[in-house]
This record gives sequence, C-alpha cells and structure tokens, in this order.
Amino acid sequence: MPVDAQDFKVSNKKPMYLKSFDSSWLPKWAQQEEYKKILKQHAEALLEENRQHLIKEQELLWANDTYSMLIILQGMDAAGKDSTIRQVMSGVNPQGCRVTSFKTPSAEELRHDFLWRHVKALPERGSIGIFNRSYYEDVLIVKVRPEIFVKQELLKNKDNTLFWEQRYEDINLFERHLVRNGTIILKFYLHISKEEQKNRLLKRLKNSEKTWKFSLTDLEERAKWSEYEKAYEEMLNKTSTEWAPWYVIPADRKWVAHTLISDVIAAEITKLDLKYPTLNMSQKEALIKAKNELEKE
Amino acid sequence: MPVDAQDFKVSNKKPMYLKSFDSSWLPKWAQQEEYKKILKQHAEALLEENRQHLIKEQELLWANDTYSMLIILQGMDAAGKDSTIRQVMSGVNPQGCRVTSFKTPSAEELRHDFLWRHVKALPERGSIGIFNRSYYEDVLIVKVRPEIFVKQELLKNKDNTLFWEQRYEDINLFERHLVRNGTIILKFYLHISKEEQKNRLLKRLKNSEKTWKFSLTDLEERAKWSEYEKAYEEMLNKTSTEWAPWYVIPADRKWVAHTLISDVIAAEITKLDLKYPTLNMSQKEALIKAKNELEKE
Repeated sequence: MPVDAQDFKVSNKKPMYLKSFDSSWLPKWAQQEEYKKILKQHAEALLEENRQHLIKEQELLWANDTYSMLIILQGMDAAGKDSTIRQVMSGVNPQGCRVTSFKTPSAEELRHDFLWRHVKALPERGSIGIFNRSYYEDVLIVKVRPEIFVKQELLKNKDNTLFWEQRYEDINLFERHLVRNGTIILKFYLHISKEEQKNRLLKRLKNSEKTWKFSLTDLEERAKWSEYEKAYEEMLNKTSTEWAPWYVIPADRKWVAHTLISDVIAAEITKLDLKYPTLNMSQKEALIKAKNELEKE
Repeated sequence: MPVDAQDFKVSNKKPMYLKSFDSSWLPKWAQQEEYKKILKQHAEALLEENRQHLIKEQELLWANDTYSMLIILQGMDAAGKDSTIRQVMSGVNPQGCRVTSFKTPSAEELRHDFLWRHVKALPERGSIGIFNRSYYEDVLIVKVRPEIFVKQELLKNKDNTLFWEQRYEDINLFERHLVRNGTIILKFYLHISKEEQKNRLLKRLKNSEKTWKFSLTDLEERAKWSEYEKAYEEMLNKTSTEWAPWYVIPADRKWVAHTLISDVIAAEITKLDLKYPTLNMSQKEALIKAKNELEKE
C-alpha cells in the first residue's frame, strides 16, 4: 500500500480520538473512482503477496519453536472480524494456526477471573493464535452492559473508575508477561462507521444465506453505539502499550482493512528474522551417522 | 479419480492384510510414464475441486452448528501426515478448523487415562478437528515400546491380550459415543513402504531446510518396522467400525494420498446434505421487524 501501516498504530504517548479517525479511509489521490480502482487492485495484489510471505514465515516460526504470535481482533458487530480471518490467514497451514472465537462465557468460565478462559486458548510456541474477540470484551460489553456478566458484588462499594483502571492495568501486565515469554502480540480494532454497520446488517437480513449470522441482539448493541465507541476509545488509549500496541484499522472497505492487517502481521513476523534452526557439531555428527546407516541399509 | 476412494475403506467384516496392500498404488492403465502424468494432472485438478467444495461445506457446517467432523491421521514417520494437512485443508477457514498434533504426553497427561488429552481437543459443534496422531498411538507405540509410556503396573499380572482387546473396545465405544452425539469420524492410515520412508528420511537429512524435521528416534522406530506394521494391521482390523471406519491410503505418492483423502472428506461431508439454517415464522417476523427498524433509522 502506498501508505505505512504503522501510521495506524495507537501511540502510548498521546491520546487518540475515534471521532477524528476516518473509517472509510482512502488516500487523497485515490478519492476519484478510477484511482480507487487502481488502489484496490494494488491492495489485493499486496494482500496476496503478504499471504504468501506469511505462509513461509509461519513454517519458520514452527521450525524455530521459540516464539508464538497472538493476533487479537476487536470491533463492533459486522466490522469484518470473520472475513479478516478468512482472507488474511487463508492458505496458512492450519497445523500452526488456531482461531478461538470468544462468545458469551459459560457458567464455568464466569466462575473464574476474566482472563482465565483466554489463558487456556493461548497459542503454543511455534504457532499463531487468533482471538476473535477476547478479554477486551471485559472492558467493553461488560462496561457498557454490566448487568449481563459481572457479579454485582465485584462493583458494589467500589470506586468504578478504579475498577476499570485496574482491569486495564491487569491486561497490560498480563500482555507484558506474555511478550516477555516469547509471544508477539498484535491487536487490531476494526473501525467501521455506524452507517456502514447499517448497510452490512441490512445485507445480512436480505440474503437468505446470511440471515443465520444476524442476531436480534445486534440491534440492542447498535442502540448503544456511542457508549461502545467511548469504551473502545478508552480501551485503545489505556492498553496500547510499547509491548502490545493497538492498530486502529479503517474497516468500512474490507479490502483496505484486510491489506493493512496483513501488512502489519507480515512486517512484524519478518522482524523476528527467523532462520531454519542450525545444528551444533555433535548434532551434525549424529545426522551424518544416521545418513550413513540409512544409506547402507 | 478414476477410482472409488471407498475401495480403500477397511471392512469390519473381513480382515485386511497390509502385506497385500500396495502402498505405491497406481491403476494398471497408468503404470506407463505418460499415462501416469495424465493421472497426476487429473488428481491435482480433483484435489483443487475437493478443496473448493470443502471450503463451501465447512461454512455450512459452521452455520448449521449441529455436526462436527473429526479427522484422524496416522502413519509411520514421514508418511506425509503434515503435508496432507497442509495440502488438503489449505484454504479452509481457520476459524472452523483446529489441528492438534499429539506428541509425547506430558507428565500431567500421563496421570490420566489415555483418552483424556484427546477428549480435551475434540472439535466443537460446527467445526472440523484434525488429530495429527491420536489415541491410536496408545495401541501402537505404547504396544511396540511399552517401556516408554505405560506404568508397568497396568500390565503386570494381566493377560496382555485382554489388555489390548479392552483398549480397542474402549476406543470403539468412545467413538460410537461421539458419532451418536453428532461427530463424523474419518480415520486415515497413510501407508508407505519401508523403501519410501528411507527416501524421505534421507531427503530430510540432505536438505538443510528439512533437517529440523529429522529426529534420531526416527531411526530407532524404523528398526521396529515390522512390529509397527503388525500393530497397525491389528489396530485397523479391530477398530474399523461401521460408525468410524479406517481408510488405508496408499501414500508412497503424495499426490495420490492427498487426492484420495480429500475425496473421502468431500464425499462424507456432502452426505450430511447441509443447508443454510431456515427460520421459523416468529423468527422471520422478528427479522422483518429488525429490517424495518434499521431502514427507517
């Protein structure tokens, strides 16, 4: 893309405001239909290139067995989380890639701290884990509609501000712990406009092959759009850290979102500078011995 | 393929003998180089077709949220389990496909019954689970080299025949339970010749990008080839059931193996005759109401 995906990283130094962020983003020169078409073609080619690159790097990640990568996707309903997974990760060897979609917590999960069920789903060394929604819901939906999840006792007689501050802090330190232990964490907030969500929900409602994706609660959540936006904004500012930054991805156009996300992932995995494991002297000798044995069989 | 993949199914009525099974399988007419080339092209086209079909069916599986599919891959070292996963499942949405590779059990896992760690990795409703090795190792490596895993007490003072018979029975009934609860189980034994294993191990040893895949224990296992073959044969005969049959896949040629396996998977998932979920009257009304609400916003 004729743009640096790093521009979409949320700084941990100065606050970002979602209102001033254009979810239908296009570079100025591409506003005209003909240039937009060129940009789209370019983006799609780049997505394919990143995909191929990722397939190779993932094999190296697996062979090295040292690092893991955790990709977190957050966004309003219909922001394109599912299609991002399908498009960006398609072709990646499913053996080294595990997607977990976090839905309403089970009764057992609710009886544990809010990180518990996510810890169990973390990617093992050598593999990529994708969280479709995550513990960030615990500072989003749980904040906007606390009646659904949080045992009231947790909030009772407590300063609410402190409660949420502590959650942000717990998340940040949990992520630092993971990073210190070899996990690369990439967090993407897929930012769509309220108008674009409307279009997408209507599309689901009109296409009989898509109606199963529509849930009546989508409208209840939509009614709380501005409260969610506020919660997202605070979350982005409080939890975009040096070790695990957030990227705000303009997602009104799926091809823009997919290419930007694949660009960040490809760039970050390349930074690891992975090589195939090399052997030490005694390992080499053992292999030569094995080769000779096999050959003279 | 000009062949019915069902021909490779192990009957639960009459015994099969691995010795009489040709791992380098080609139909007679394709023995000549020029015809082999035609067959290979045909197989690759079919693999791609099955892949596209599987991508569609998996979306339906997910949307239906009723069935799950468990694919079990077994085979000697270098039989091509990893490449099968990469080739057959590539393009499938990673969101609905989870691969678990079972390696040496952990200390915690060894403190439980042999099915325990596999139960935890079963695919949830709507998704495909792939076991790269499985509880079948507990009647294979554990049988050939019991000193590695089995607490000796389990076998002491016991009739060994009975011990293994009970394992087969436990496996069969466990699988029947899963099938009764909506899991489709497909089991593939990738059958390679001892000669072909030698070629592949040497290839790993000679290619610096592959040496990390080579383990010195591969040779120790290879030394027990005929014992393993016997264990596999018995396993195939004892655990190919009506509800969860084994397929013995000729795997000396990877393109043959990949196409046959994809053919079985595509055929079995098609048998489910999945359709997108339909709505009942009150659901339809609710959706129309939702659509109206959205439109007049």
